[in-house]
Amino acid sequence: MIIIGEKINGSIPSVARAIESRDEAHIRRLARRQAEAGAHYIDICASVDGDIEIETMKWLIDIVQDTVDTPICIDSPNPHTCVACIPYCNKEGIINSVSLEGDKIETVFPAIANTGWQVVALLCDNHGIPSTVEKRLNIAERIFSKVNEYGIPESNVYIDPLVIALATDEQSMTKFAACTRQLREVYPEAHITSGLSNISFGLPARKVINSAFMVLAMHAGMDSAIVDPLNRDLLGLIYATEALTECDEYCLGFIKAYRQGIIGKPTKK
Amino acid sequence: MIIIGEKINGSIPSVARAIESRDEAHIRRLARRQAEAGAHYIDICASVDGDIEIETMKWLIDIVQDTVDTPICIDSPNPHTCVACIPYCNKEGIINSVSLEGDKIETVFPAIANTGWQVVALLCDNHGIPSTVEKRLNIAERIFSKVNEYGIPESNVYIDPLVIALATDEQSMTKFAACTRQLREVYPEAHITSGLSNISFGLPARKVINSAFMVLAMHAGMDSAIVDPLNRDLLGLIYATEALTECDEYCLGFIKAYRQGIIGKPTKK
Repeated sequence: MIIIGEKINGSIPSVARAIESRDEAHIRRLARRQAEAGAHYIDICASVDGDIEIETMKWLIDIVQDTVDTPICIDSPNPHTCVACIPYCNKEGIINSVSLEGDKIETVFPAIANTGWQVVALLCDNHGIPSTVEKRLNIAERIFSKVNEYGIPESNVYIDPLVIALATDEQSMTKFAACTRQLREVYPEAHITSGLSNISFGLPARKVINSAFMVLAMHAGMDSAIVDPLNRDLLGLIYATEALTECDEYCLGFIKAYRQGIIGKPTKK
Repeated sequence: MIIIGEKINGSIPSVARAIESRDEAHIRRLARRQAEAGAHYIDICASVDGDIEIETMKWLIDIVQDTVDTPICIDSPNPHTCVACIPYCNKEGIINSVSLEGDKIETVFPAIANTGWQVVALLCDNHGIPSTVEKRLNIAERIFSKVNEYGIPESNVYIDPLVIALATDEQSMTKFAACTRQLREVYPEAHITSGLSNISFGLPARKVINSAFMVLAMHAGMDSAIVDPLNRDLLGLIYATEALTECDEYCLGFIKAYRQGIIGKPTKK
């Protein structure tokens, strides 16, 4: 399971304040704690006005790289920002994200072709998120035709099938799982990821909905998630599900995570 | 999801002490709290020496029935104890359990035939728990031939496919799920239940293994569980999984459980 740590995001009020006041220590702490919890990538999203987005991203990227070795996931709705940030990164990471909307693919794919950069591709287009599995698979097909055109390896692509709120579509999970299973079959080398918290939008006790979604989505074939790795319960469920679904021989990954203190009851510090 | 509350069990040290000191208040509290948390049945297991088992069970049953209206699940490894306790119960409940071991079926089935009593049937025989799905289904077939012989409705049977510890068999969950799916197909009216905590035996952070198991088992078709309904996280996952798997229209059951205060963050009392 590839974990993309989501904590450094300007849409989180405490992070927005840290960005505004240029509170380096706060960003460093979030980077370090996520890396210690086993995040494979650290997502960085400035969520600021367009005219200061690139400089803000650079400030964040510099701090994170000065703190940890974990590669960066450059996160912006603006593909030009994503491309502009690539040279700031010491290691090849992930661009989050493209879709069939606007010129995202045409902007990002030329920049990552013939590199080790990976990319999250959302299954939506200018018409929004399709409600049927079939239409999402059609979008995937169009995205992968571009992936092939630019010679990007399938394994460098993270497909996000997108989650509709369960409160508005009670088949949301069923559709996500069906989509994931079919993507796994047609594009076996590609990864499947999800931001997932949208599933519980509009419902109470969101944490348990997100947790159960995680287990069911992993069972359907999702092999990555953009989550808070400091949520010990959720991380524990991820390791447990890997062990239960035969993706963790002799439960060694589970036991190691427990010994490292990143899952199970927290030990006093 | 049919929840059988497991808290009144003499194998739990605090309950053993309450039984020994005839601490009625402790038993009443466990009965009341489980009923309030939505348990559909209250399991009662004395776990004492054979010569005082029936009188102890009667003492426990009397207290529980004097406290709540929830029907009883009579739990003993001795089928004669189970049958002897039936007349003490005001309502028809569940016998926990029979299997192909010894004379369990021949003792219990005549007593519940032509009544509304239900029964948990474990998929094991005198040779223990079979390691393959095929052999467990063969045991189920032999049990259901007895069920039919005694004219017991299939819907009064809770099959427990039995869980082997993940630490000793990494296909444990896969086998449980495969078994559950096939049972659902062959015996669509029967229930599938599980004590489930054996899955995490020998591993650390058992709670997350049990939780992920619950979600995956429900997805495979398990519609009952013998669990601690006071475990809010686990109960939350059960309600969340029902909503995610289209077993809870408009999430009404989930929202109701939240409003009743039995899932989600506990409110201060």
